[in-house]
Amino acid sequence: MHLARCLPLLALALALAAPAQAAETRHPTPKEVLDASPLADWREPVPENTFYIELPTGRVVVELAPGFAPAHVENMRKLAREHWYDGTAVVRVQDNYVTQWGMPEETPRPMKTAKDKLAPEFTVPGGVASLPFTPLPDPDAFAPEVGISDIFPAARDRQTGEAWMTHCYGIVGVGRDMAVDSGSGAELYTVIGHSPRALDRVITVVGRVLWGMEHLTALPRGTGNLGFYEKPEQRTPIKSVTLAADVPAAAREKIHVLSGQSASYGQWLEARRQRQDDFFIRPAGHIDLCNALPPVRRIPG
Amino acid sequence: MHLARCLPLLALALALAAPAQAAETRHPTPKEVLDASPLADWREPVPENTFYIELPTGRVVVELAPGFAPAHVENMRKLAREHWYDGTAVVRVQDNYVTQWGMPEETPRPMKTAKDKLAPEFTVPGGVASLPFTPLPDPDAFAPEVGISDIFPAARDRQTGEAWMTHCYGIVGVGRDMAVDSGSGAELYTVIGHSPRALDRVITVVGRVLWGMEHLTALPRGTGNLGFYEKPEQRTPIKSVTLAADVPAAAREKIHVLSGQSASYGQWLEARRQRQDDFFIRPAGHIDLCNALPPVRRIPG
Repeated sequence: MHLARCLPLLALALALAAPAQAAETRHPTPKEVLDASPLADWREPVPENTFYIELPTGRVVVELAPGFAPAHVENMRKLAREHWYDGTAVVRVQDNYVTQWGMPEETPRPMKTAKDKLAPEFTVPGGVASLPFTPLPDPDAFAPEVGISDIFPAARDRQTGEAWMTHCYGIVGVGRDMAVDSGSGAELYTVIGHSPRALDRVITVVGRVLWGMEHLTALPRGTGNLGFYEKPEQRTPIKSVTLAADVPAAAREKIHVLSGQSASYGQWLEARRQRQDDFFIRPAGHIDLCNALPPVRRIPG
Repeated sequence: MHLARCLPLLALALALAAPAQAAETRHPTPKEVLDASPLADWREPVPENTFYIELPTGRVVVELAPGFAPAHVENMRKLAREHWYDGTAVVRVQDNYVTQWGMPEETPRPMKTAKDKLAPEFTVPGGVASLPFTPLPDPDAFAPEVGISDIFPAARDRQTGEAWMTHCYGIVGVGRDMAVDSGSGAELYTVIGHSPRALDRVITVVGRVLWGMEHLTALPRGTGNLGFYEKPEQRTPIKSVTLAADVPAAAREKIHVLSGQSASYGQWLEARRQRQDDFFIRPAGHIDLCNALPPVRRIPG
């Protein structure tokens, strides 16, 4: 775990090794795969699907997935454009579970163009046929098949034809009450612990945090029931939520994410399964879905 | 996700339901299993194996596992008793990975009674025969068999006879450099994100955070390489580390943990697999190891 101390030595060792020989004797590392990947295997967040959530400590970038939850994503665009989210707050942080934000209960806020209840979109009927999917080779505790759909973690069931986005660290889901149609996308949460896959197909999942996750994870845990903050002043204010499409192109966040359907993703996945970095003396030979989300980086250059 | 709103109604519904009828129509919830569990199925942390780590925001309780890493646990007792840890610091917080603490590199601190290098204890040879084990019923991406050993998450391989503790949220591992024998238990880390199981059998795992995890997770993420803090003043000081055995019994933390070998654990596990809480409209019917760690609670009464 103390890799930092060794980086100069490691760099020296790599510089001394003849590239041809290295290629013969070992698999590339995940970093080497990404460094060699063509720019065409990456894509920028889709502006019409991307939220910029402004917190006091910085910006969180969330990409929404209309392929998995079209009605919720459409409603959330409306909420952003009517500035419904501006002035809401992080109301709950439950350790090893979720950070949740929305309008505090004591101050309900009516909607203008958006709906305050939507039919659930827990799975995509016919998603096995309609959605892209790169399957993972290792078994999963929860679903018959898991993989990556575009840039999102997903599962599917060939018997029913359904596909769904899975609860992994950093995915964004729609808060709801007991009624399955009580969510709207006004109240949202992200996973901040070991991925709680038991929530799959029980909640509508709408997207993934691509950047700035630390602004939602390094927050004091709430001491109330389920991690809700007990005092209003403990909440973190959400200054605004803006669709990237409504920001001038030059002012958009300069990040991109590896496509789950690209050749580079497949190579990166295999490099992660067979870690050849010097530290990994015994490559696992396996990987689980929530450790295999397509990587995100600042656009180089 | 908005259970708080519904708790009064839920309590009312449960109060109105005749217990006999409820028992006929559904499985108990995880909470019901724990509420009904006999006290004998719980145990207190073993004082000789338990660290109290004092941070500015409060106490972290770690139980060490001599069954998995006897030499490291013995060395760590010595480090605590010679006050080696007092005045060290949290030096690294990498989002979705680890929080790491120890002596900052620029100020090495010699040891008196403890060793500064130990042979690795990545697995327990013969652990299949020697260690208690309650297997989990669902498949695992990484190991042929996973389950709970005492209060710890574990995996094992019947072909080699080895068992090992697995990297789950809140487990504590031994930092090392590239050399496998370069760790000592002076530098430690805990998992603060989706469980990085690729580290299994690559690092010595020594224990589990039982209480106060939030003091290690709600910290600013480091902005240096691998999440190391770039400035000394960003580090969180560790005031002291004390073995619970060296604290008067009356002053020890009043917590206990469900034994993984108890009947209540088996019932709780099944209740978690088949969640019958009203929110879980579609019980997963499965669970993965890192979502199945034996629960910890304040000793009631």
